[in-house]
Amino acid sequence: STWKVWTEEDVARTLPKRDGNVHKGTYGTGLLVAGSDDMPGSAALAAIGAMRMGIGKLSVFTESGAKNVIAALVPEATYIQRDFSKKIGDLGQKFAGIAIGPGIEPNEAFEAFIAAAFQEPLPVVLDAGALSKRTYPKRTAPVIVTPHPGEFSRMIDIPSKTIAADRIRLASAYAREQGVVVVLKGQYTVIAFPDGSGIVNPTGNGSLAKGGSGDTLTGMLLANICTHDNIKEAVANAVYIHGACADLWIRENGAATLTAHDFSQLLPRVMHKLEKLCVN
Amino acid sequence: STWKVWTEEDVARTLPKRDGNVHKGTYGTGLLVAGSDDMPGSAALAAIGAMRMGIGKLSVFTESGAKNVIAALVPEATYIQRDFSKKIGDLGQKFAGIAIGPGIEPNEAFEAFIAAAFQEPLPVVLDAGALSKRTYPKRTAPVIVTPHPGEFSRMIDIPSKTIAADRIRLASAYAREQGVVVVLKGQYTVIAFPDGSGIVNPTGNGSLAKGGSGDTLTGMLLANICTHDNIKEAVANAVYIHGACADLWIRENGAATLTAHDFSQLLPRVMHKLEKLCVN
Amino acid sequence: STWKVWTEEDVARTLPKRDGNVHKGTYGTGLLVAGSDDMPGSAALAAIGAMRMGIGKLSVFTESGAKNVIAALVPEATYIQRDFSKKIGDLGQKFAGIAIGPGIEPNEAFEAFIAAAFQEPLPVVLDAGALSKRTYPKRTAPVIVTPHPGEFSRMIDIPSKTIAADRIRLASAYAREQGVVVVLKGQYTVIAFPDGSGIVNPTGNGSLAKGGSGDTLTGMLLANICTHDNIKEAVANAVYIHGACADLWIRENGAATLTAHDFSQLLPRVMHKLEKLCVN
Amino acid sequence: STWKVWTEEDVARTLPKRDGNVHKGTYGTGLLVAGSDDMPGSAALAAIGAMRMGIGKLSVFTESGAKNVIAALVPEATYIQRDFSKKIGDLGQKFAGIAIGPGIEPNEAFEAFIAAAFQEPLPVVLDAGALSKRTYPKRTAPVIVTPHPGEFSRMIDIPSKTIAADRIRLASAYAREQGVVVVLKGQYTVIAFPDGSGIVNPTGNGSLAKGGSGDTLTGMLLANICTHDNIKEAVANAVYIHGACADLWIRENGAATLTAHDFSQLLPRVMHKLEKLCVN
Ligand SMILES: Nc1ncnc2c1ncn2[C@@H]1O[C@H](COP(=O)(O)O)[C@@H](O)[C@H]1O
Ligand SMILES: Nc1ncnc2c1ncn2[C@@H]1O[C@H](COP(=O)(O)O)[C@@H](O)[C@H]1O
Ligand SMILES: Nc1ncnc2c1ncn2[C@@H]1O[C@H](COP(=O)(O)O)[C@@H](O)[C@H]1O
Ligand SMILES: Nc1ncnc2c1ncn2[C@@H]1O[C@H](COP(=O)(O)O)[C@@H](O)[C@H]1O
Ligand SMILES: [Mg+2]
Ligand SMILES: [Mg+2]
Ligand SMILES: [Mg+2]
Ligand SMILES: [Mg+2]
Repeated sequence: STWKVWTEEDVARTLPKRDGNVHKGTYGTGLLVAGSDDMPGSAALAAIGAMRMGIGKLSVFTESGAKNVIAALVPEATYIQRDFSKKIGDLGQKFAGIAIGPGIEPNEAFEAFIAAAFQEPLPVVLDAGALSKRTYPKRTAPVIVTPHPGEFSRMIDIPSKTIAADRIRLASAYAREQGVVVVLKGQYTVIAFPDGSGIVNPTGNGSLAKGGSGDTLTGMLLANICTHDNIKEAVANAVYIHGACADLWIRENGAATLTAHDFSQLLPRVMHKLEKLCVN
Repeated sequence: STWKVWTEEDVARTLPKRDGNVHKGTYGTGLLVAGSDDMPGSAALAAIGAMRMGIGKLSVFTESGAKNVIAALVPEATYIQRDFSKKIGDLGQKFAGIAIGPGIEPNEAFEAFIAAAFQEPLPVVLDAGALSKRTYPKRTAPVIVTPHPGEFSRMIDIPSKTIAADRIRLASAYAREQGVVVVLKGQYTVIAFPDGSGIVNPTGNGSLAKGGSGDTLTGMLLANICTHDNIKEAVANAVYIHGACADLWIRENGAATLTAHDFSQLLPRVMHKLEKLCVN
Repeated sequence: STWKVWTEEDVARTLPKRDGNVHKGTYGTGLLVAGSDDMPGSAALAAIGAMRMGIGKLSVFTESGAKNVIAALVPEATYIQRDFSKKIGDLGQKFAGIAIGPGIEPNEAFEAFIAAAFQEPLPVVLDAGALSKRTYPKRTAPVIVTPHPGEFSRMIDIPSKTIAADRIRLASAYAREQGVVVVLKGQYTVIAFPDGSGIVNPTGNGSLAKGGSGDTLTGMLLANICTHDNIKEAVANAVYIHGACADLWIRENGAATLTAHDFSQLLPRVMHKLEKLCVN
Repeated sequence: STWKVWTEEDVARTLPKRDGNVHKGTYGTGLLVAGSDDMPGSAALAAIGAMRMGIGKLSVFTESGAKNVIAALVPEATYIQRDFSKKIGDLGQKFAGIAIGPGIEPNEAFEAFIAAAFQEPLPVVLDAGALSKRTYPKRTAPVIVTPHPGEFSRMIDIPSKTIAADRIRLASAYAREQGVVVVLKGQYTVIAFPDGSGIVNPTGNGSLAKGGSGDTLTGMLLANICTHDNIKEAVANAVYIHGACADLWIRENGAATLTAHDFSQLLPRVMHKLEKLCVN
């Protein structure tokens, strides 16, 4: 099984074109399960990522306190009042993909919600509060988990330091055993696929080392699983482009000063450059 | 009856000048009936469209949850607490035009509100939640309906696919039979008038294929029916300029990345270019 | 008594310098009485005007629904919960100036509040909801009223059309009889002083003919009465600079597209140009 | 003991680099105790300062009314519902530093909270409402107080005028006697250390003489005590960079027009210039 470094050429080769006789239905509706009264912004940052990466429509399943925060930054999103006891079957058929976790403190009802989501035939991204030590049911639609080393440590019960020394092997083992895509974040993010193949991401820098960066990536992943045909390309492009935004930032700004909501301005410019390289 | 493609020259010829001894009363007050607690942003996006296109004043009839979302983006708007049982006669005389529908789930009280609005002698724009299978009373002030193909399908009980293959004929038939202006949205938006004439719009691109785009257009139409003398020009210019904003966007940014609230920055630039071409 | 057209040279000659061993106390604290649950944005627009023009501190006396709207745009402001029965004496000594009216529906308690404000030894700006047919008590600190022709018509019981034909004479008569400064707004705003002298303002254009423009001017006036020594210069400079922002806008943007919150970006640039011309 | 003027070279020499295999944990989590229902913006301004200066994560301990205001400007922050009777021990171990005071009216519970914070082994910044006449317990982690002359006058019971004439001596005396770092703000801010040494800051100008400026500095100090190893450099750099932002502002904008939330745009540019000078 092959591992490769994802490059600008790979992005240019695999980025979907957005033209011709398309409409918002062409790009699917995503469900974002994120944000809470005490962590409202995380949902807004993920929503920025999803909308700017090109999702067709975005619905946010969140607590009421998070709504205005999201809406001020992403007025294009709509809302579903959070109630984790709500039957996910009511939600499942309307969406092309679902991302779960930023800004959520896990509890039992939330775990049941995640379990129900797994029963739906749609790709699932799990991040932050949705990451824990668990097994995954057999399903055809992909599951993508996006831990940083600290979160991965909790998921596999191995100290962060051990993980740091062995990122590719550990991520790949988990991906193969659990049948999920692992995005092990950090400098040179590792993406491991269930078939044993994988990708190392060359973009990004220390400006991303700040609360909120990962939330935006989760939203970008949600958009990409809704707009790409190929799941590997969907994930690799999201991770690459996320880092490329940070690389653009530090060419013009102090590395300590990036905040995740700056992606709203960075993504249009980074995507423009990449779309112009597109050959497909 | 004639059909034509609307061009930059047509816009330059028909755009009202904004100078001399004018005041906000010169440009009329619009009433925007849009937004709800779960879809607050749609009203904000329509309000952006209305204010940036030059309406004199804007009053938004909306649920309380939507107010702060609108106000943060469009502090120039004022509010009327939504109550669809409120007599529309209380509202009707104060306004130069009314747009109804973005971000509203239809119900009986809402239908009654629309029916009452039709009794008022002012132009009415219907979009989104206000679009349904209905007939329209005889009236002198124009009605403009702005469906995308999915919405038009529900309005005329014909599958979207059939509509896609026959957009001009079907839009024009509806416009003539119902006596309304039909803006059938999508690539090459079709505008059909009750007299059988019509316009095809050449601007716009796939960057508009995202939730929220249509809401902004509705606000732009509201502004134009309040500021143009000629209803055909009012509608054609709004549609043309809406698409031209997207065309400007993709010259500088990734096509996947446009969000509807970017129109707040795009409209001033696009209008500047067009106003400079003005010969009237 | 002399009337003159205020020019860029006049501004350059009279604009206070902001340097040296100054602190926020040097520029005074203003009290803005504006905004309501249904018109929250007007207070935000006035607050933008006040802060950008250089007030030292700004306190806003407003309804709770307006607070978040203001704070999102002007986080530098602080709040006093509106209660018009509150003794103005509690407020009066802390402030260098007070502006009253944008976004307020007048009622009896509000009238009493205005009457109490007149008893305080500080300059008062009255706009919008605070403008009505009234007489003014004898006081040493100036009163500035800022009607547009429709509001002036209500204040002096003369039809708008008659006013339009005779702006300077009517404004000046009111100023002399009532002992207040009259800012009669519109194209070529007229500023009439109690001593019979006056100013005609050459800046501004039709882009200002939109709801919200006047609210920003009220905030700018509040700042200027707190930061200038000379009341005539304070008023003339605010009016001149307000129009100059609109003149800058239309050099770069469509004239129909200006919104009042754009002053937040325009004032820093316009003031930069004017401060560089400063000779004092 | 030495006193020196802090220079651009000093900043370039002491600014931490942000690259390599870092993550948000590398830069620590700060606790900001600021903002209230009537002064919500002060917390937002401090949060802007902290995030833009490079803190790893920021948690804001505030009243519920301040949350949405902060979140709209700094969606990267998270919240803890303010309750000053909450045991600080619950908070103390999670944080690398704590800043207390902007937008808070002091009361008994608040004083007890500050006293409890002093028991925790983490650096403490006190500003605004947290500044009063007090003594400080012996502790190893530094305390930084940031009064303007009016606040320092209350702290040491000496009239502002007397302070103005003797800033370095009085600040240094307090620093040595109380064992705290004193940032005596104003033109040429004086920074006095407990060991008798000190710094005079050459940056900044009258554009900072406006409500809100100090709040942003408090946030910048919070970030710096979390990201620098050396407390003197942490404080000196925050003060220098704060003033440098104002110096950049007036090169491009009117000096009267700066508002504290503009630091969100200024800090990335100022930091970029300084980081490029870095030799470490
Ligand atoms: N030093 C670094 N170099 C490159 N990427 C980083 C670095 N630190 C953090 N990131 C990225 O920033 C995001 C942090 O996610 P989170 O920890 O969930 O906020 C992930 O996408 C990381 O890959
Ligand atoms: N592929 C496309 N090309 C041009 N315009 C489009 C395209 N997709 C959507 N639009 C426009 O975007 C808006 C979408 O409206 P709505 O579906 O109500 O959000 C309409 O104005 C459409 O005409
Ligand atoms: N045609 C115009 N030319 C110049 N200034 C105008 C024009 N229309 C409105 N204004 C200004 O815009 C503001 C409108 O105030 P208001 O009517 O209270 O919103 C006042 O400052 C007017 O002087
Ligand atoms: N005239 C001035 N020159 C330089 N810095 C100033 C001046 N006035 C105020 N500042 C700075 O602005 C901030 C004001 O803090 P505060 O009074 O708490 O809002 C402090 O950092 C001061 O040092
Ligand atoms: Mg994360
Ligand atoms: Mg629509
Ligand atoms: Mg007005
Ligand atoms: Mg302060």
